[in-house]
Amino acid sequence: MTQTAQDEIRVSEIFGPTIQGEGALIGQPTVFVRTGGCDYRCVWCDSLHAVDRRFRADWLPMGPGAVLDRVRALSGGLPVMVSLSGGNPAIQPLGGLIAAGKAEGYRFALETQGSVARDWFADLDLLVLSPKPPSSAMETDWEALRACVEAAGPGPRVVLKFVVFDEADYTYARAAAARFPALPVYLQPGNHTPPGPQDDNARIDINGILQRLRWLVDRVVADHWFAAHVLPQLHVLIWGNKRGV
Amino acid sequence: MTQTAQDEIRVSEIFGPTIQGEGALIGQPTVFVRTGGCDYRCVWCDSLHAVDRRFRADWLPMGPGAVLDRVRALSGGLPVMVSLSGGNPAIQPLGGLIAAGKAEGYRFALETQGSVARDWFADLDLLVLSPKPPSSAMETDWEALRACVEAAGPGPRVVLKFVVFDEADYTYARAAAARFPALPVYLQPGNHTPPGPQDDNARIDINGILQRLRWLVDRVVADHWFAAHVLPQLHVLIWGNKRGV
Repeated sequence: MTQTAQDEIRVSEIFGPTIQGEGALIGQPTVFVRTGGCDYRCVWCDSLHAVDRRFRADWLPMGPGAVLDRVRALSGGLPVMVSLSGGNPAIQPLGGLIAAGKAEGYRFALETQGSVARDWFADLDLLVLSPKPPSSAMETDWEALRACVEAAGPGPRVVLKFVVFDEADYTYARAAAARFPALPVYLQPGNHTPPGPQDDNARIDINGILQRLRWLVDRVVADHWFAAHVLPQLHVLIWGNKRGV
Repeated sequence: MTQTAQDEIRVSEIFGPTIQGEGALIGQPTVFVRTGGCDYRCVWCDSLHAVDRRFRADWLPMGPGAVLDRVRALSGGLPVMVSLSGGNPAIQPLGGLIAAGKAEGYRFALETQGSVARDWFADLDLLVLSPKPPSSAMETDWEALRACVEAAGPGPRVVLKFVVFDEADYTYARAAAARFPALPVYLQPGNHTPPGPQDDNARIDINGILQRLRWLVDRVVADHWFAAHVLPQLHVLIWGNKRGV
């Protein structure tokens, strides 16, 4: 693969295989490629080590071939689902990695807030659009989100995922989902005790998360919102805030 | 709907909507129709109230119209996923219920051990075949299981689900899945502290279940079994052994 500086991906971490802990692919063995850098700064971000520019020195520039080499080594050379996350992976040049990996049978899911549309979204197997609710303190650019859905086109499965902390977040999710009635919806309770960027395995309030999960189920059932899925972050229930599992 | 005694379904309980706690439809709002009676008697059965003939008097004979009326009342008349479980629902006459419900937009999933094949499996949206591993003390009839897959035909999604307690169960699941390489696989750790049939909300060992879940993830990852999904029983994590949630 010819490689140029323009192809270089800023990689925060590559780990796995482990099971996907959340959303549409929950429970599925997955290798995670987490890119560094984000155009958002959600107040409850659980991946600040891949977002805060103070950690920029830890984000290794890697060509798509080097990333694929590492994924291949982790999966024992067997095709596996690769989850591209961040930060916001949509601000990285991932088209070459996806094309090369797909040629070897790997499948690719990408999770983004939907603020930046890329033409290579069309080559994904799954595009998870996770617009950020009011509790994040971010503003949603609805035009950009719609451009992401359009960039994906008919190829990949496209779903909406919402982190929900409170009633205002839930109301936001309902309204956002109503803008895209064809897209399946995944709701998950937020982790209100996320790890700090240098604080692997920080203390976590599992009971608080389960309480919010129960509330979310009750809320969805009461509203007869049958198109929604309600799921926890399994990795959080299994491993707490520990990183790289 | 014309109704005869032959149409009558022995119903243990109808409840919901709540989220599906396990397997391929995890997190999805669902109304559960649990039928009474089973041709198996797994030693760790978590639904003895629908299996043990001592509770037969609690299994109300209902025609398909009456069942659908109840489902409709629970879902507020809105089409929702209906999960047919048991006991072994395959020994009940469910074809009429499925046909009538589908005509109104309801979708149907059925979960069975795969010991009895029915032609109306072809009308399901999802058929979950859950053959029982050695820890159940049951023997698998592989011919019957294959007949279930064939009865389903190309219409419904068909998946395998295995409850796994130990290494022998895991080995069984691997071998069983190898017989049906086209079917997606769902593994879940068993609940070794199931409720007694009259013991709603019995004490449960959540830490033990989570420990078995971690072990199962490690096992699947070590074997590079990337076609498998590993999922807990969410309802058990959320509500313990409580019934009807």
